Amino acid sequence: MGKRVVVVGGVAGGASAAAKAKRENPELEVVVYEKSGWVSYGACGLPYVLSGEIPRLEKLVARTPEEFRKQGVMVHTRHEVVDIDPSLKTLTVFDHTEGRTFQDRYDHLVLATGARPTIPPIPGTEQAGVFTLRNMEDGEALLKALEGARRAAILGAGYIGLEVAEAFRKRGLEVTLLEARDRPLPHWDPEVGALLKEELERHGVEVWTGVRVTALRGSGRVEAVETSEGVVPTDLVLIATGIRPNVELAQAMGVALGPTGAIATDERMRTNLEEVYAAGDVAESFYQVLKRPYWLPLGDVANKHGRTAGAVIAGKEARFHGVAGTAIFKAFGLAVATTGLSLEAALKEGYAAKKVFIKSRDGAHYYPGSQPLFVELVYEEGTERLLGGAVVAFDHGALRIDALAALLSRGGTVEDLLALDLAYAPPFSPVWDPLLIAAQEVR
Amino acid sequence: MGKRVVVVGGVAGGASAAAKAKRENPELEVVVYEKSGWVSYGACGLPYVLSGEIPRLEKLVARTPEEFRKQGVMVHTRHEVVDIDPSLKTLTVFDHTEGRTFQDRYDHLVLATGARPTIPPIPGTEQAGVFTLRNMEDGEALLKALEGARRAAILGAGYIGLEVAEAFRKRGLEVTLLEARDRPLPHWDPEVGALLKEELERHGVEVWTGVRVTALRGSGRVEAVETSEGVVPTDLVLIATGIRPNVELAQAMGVALGPTGAIATDERMRTNLEEVYAAGDVAESFYQVLKRPYWLPLGDVANKHGRTAGAVIAGKEARFHGVAGTAIFKAFGLAVATTGLSLEAALKEGYAAKKVFIKSRDGAHYYPGSQPLFVELVYEEGTERLLGGAVVAFDHGALRIDALAALLSRGGTVEDLLALDLAYAPPFSPVWDPLLIAAQEVR
Repeated sequence: MGKRVVVVGGVAGGASAAAKAKRENPELEVVVYEKSGWVSYGACGLPYVLSGEIPRLEKLVARTPEEFRKQGVMVHTRHEVVDIDPSLKTLTVFDHTEGRTFQDRYDHLVLATGARPTIPPIPGTEQAGVFTLRNMEDGEALLKALEGARRAAILGAGYIGLEVAEAFRKRGLEVTLLEARDRPLPHWDPEVGALLKEELERHGVEVWTGVRVTALRGSGRVEAVETSEGVVPTDLVLIATGIRPNVELAQAMGVALGPTGAIATDERMRTNLEEVYAAGDVAESFYQVLKRPYWLPLGDVANKHGRTAGAVIAGKEARFHGVAGTAIFKAFGLAVATTGLSLEAALKEGYAAKKVFIKSRDGAHYYPGSQPLFVELVYEEGTERLLGGAVVAFDHGALRIDALAALLSRGGTVEDLLALDLAYAPPFSPVWDPLLIAAQEVR
Repeated sequence: MGKRVVVVGGVAGGASAAAKAKRENPELEVVVYEKSGWVSYGACGLPYVLSGEIPRLEKLVARTPEEFRKQGVMVHTRHEVVDIDPSLKTLTVFDHTEGRTFQDRYDHLVLATGARPTIPPIPGTEQAGVFTLRNMEDGEALLKALEGARRAAILGAGYIGLEVAEAFRKRGLEVTLLEARDRPLPHWDPEVGALLKEELERHGVEVWTGVRVTALRGSGRVEAVETSEGVVPTDLVLIATGIRPNVELAQAMGVALGPTGAIATDERMRTNLEEVYAAGDVAESFYQVLKRPYWLPLGDVANKHGRTAGAVIAGKEARFHGVAGTAIFKAFGLAVATTGLSLEAALKEGYAAKKVFIKSRDGAHYYPGSQPLFVELVYEEGTERLLGGAVVAFDHGALRIDALAALLSRGGTVEDLLALDLAYAPPFSPVWDPLLIAAQEVR
């Protein structure tokens, strides 16, 4: 009889861990408990369901519970793990469907409890018509609310706020985007935010920056957002001001958190407790740029975490190599990709950091239909070590961020970037690749 | 009075060298002699003029002779350098417009004489209606010939042949593409060639592979291509079977060639002769993968050569870091990018090489409009050192080749590739980037 693997949470990290463990070692008994009604789906696709581009939530599902079962993985949805005793390796599970509590045991445990939205401490957030967008249930609720809605207000201009602004516009809503800081994508430098603001406004989004939200007005159902700059009447509100890891279960059983507040792991995704792993948005990653833990709650990272944990549990050699902090997203026509540290973040870290920001194109100057493309490079003065960067483009050309991420993962310098033989042909790049133009600008 | 820099050839390498030298040291007297009537243009754009997408040849010009003059660089077109005496640092120039010969002198010399098409040793190639596509004059001639033409035959399915096949189809011609080897893009592995063949045929190109061309029939004007597989009637023929460096002038003055047959240079683009530099398609590059000279006659490489030579002449610190062999091109909807060694080339080099070839997508499985995307990785067995690879996509997503090129430039392994934090969002990539899927496939 094989050992028993229990996975707590079945979305990205958890689903990956379960599938990989079973695939690598079919002797293992693998069980997934998922609190919600859905497992193994691409939460990053939710905005495209809201926009109507993807016709049904079900399309986001990678593996159904039935498919897991065929692979020998037992998946229990609407099952919430409420307590874990690591000394006995037992857990208490509440079955929301049957309304009953039962005990289970594990040899290996994977904590993949994810993250949840933070709700700002203002009056009125508990009303009907106020939403977050994190999981399929959120998506279902929002889809329903969209049917009657004409106006929407979005609190927070990070990835989710920006993607949903586009989705809501595509559904024909009037959209007001409210951001406390002075620009969209406030965790990155201002030039990128300015490009985003322009693109949002070109597509009819009202962008209010530097605005403090003080309350959500309404009597049971939200009717307006009250802010430092005036009142925004609305039919629904999306709160997208940030998320935090669901670490309560881990903490209660004695799993150590790291400096970021998420679960600390090693490169095999092991926690401080024996045979207890963590994966996905609840877990930290090693940050290749700063050589210390970092919390990067993104879908691809969660999948890597899960796959690593699953392989290690199955007895395979596997390591998670950490993150460079790479991310990309689309806001209307604009593709925005970033990696490593912004200038602001690098200065905050104490680096003598500088940046260049250049405008180039995604094709040769003479190539018809070529579009503007922007590159930011952040580097340390003196050593010229690369610390981060951004590429903003009107298409997949923003993926040249990957070459920069490759350099960041190994402590590359501006000279290393200049040494790269990047792909050139008139439909794809100017004869000097925009990354190289930016690197030359440093000199 | 500043020193005198003479640049022989003014297209990509030469124009870059001249502009950079003058910009970095305005004291320098910089003179460019160009045999043809055009300088400083993007020859890579010629297929898009033939297709009609770019309305005029002039659009390809980056700097006109007048613009050079304003920057203090004297440009003489239709001036052919016919002899150089490196002991006296003098040169003999023939002015094709005036029909006269004169002497000049230099302190620094840049050889940027480019390359020319190879013509297969078969009867009939000297006839009217037979073309090559290398420079603006070729483009002019072809544009004129296209006016009356209904059918075209292209000899050679490398980059130029493939790009021109698309251009000719866009002009409404019947196109037959004839390739001696068994696939288009014969210098790369068969899977990529098969994708290309499918795309070409989908767009109405007749693709004949494994075919030996024996003669061009016609009596003064070409009428048909005679091959081992039959006769192809045609109104015009494009010969695109390869190019070779124009090294005769260099050889005559005692400049050493390298193992590839192009001019040998160091990382400052210096030749064996004092104050004689080489740049562009006439010069070799250092190959980062094989750590030895390599001839990669591409526009971006030529520009890097020229910029390096110009900076060094101006007294600046500058180095050319060599090439990874990266290239990209478009054939109808398909973007094909390669870097480093194909499996075939790696085996020929004596590596215990293997490859993986995977099919993925350029977006999440659920993202509407996402398209197939293919990745090949070539690596050394045992060490798992990356030797090369290809990305074939239906758009700029093929630029993820740049991340692979970044690894190749530093001897990266499959594990280094797995360590990369590549950009993920549903419109741009599956949650596992296709490069990572390919790397996992190695295991």
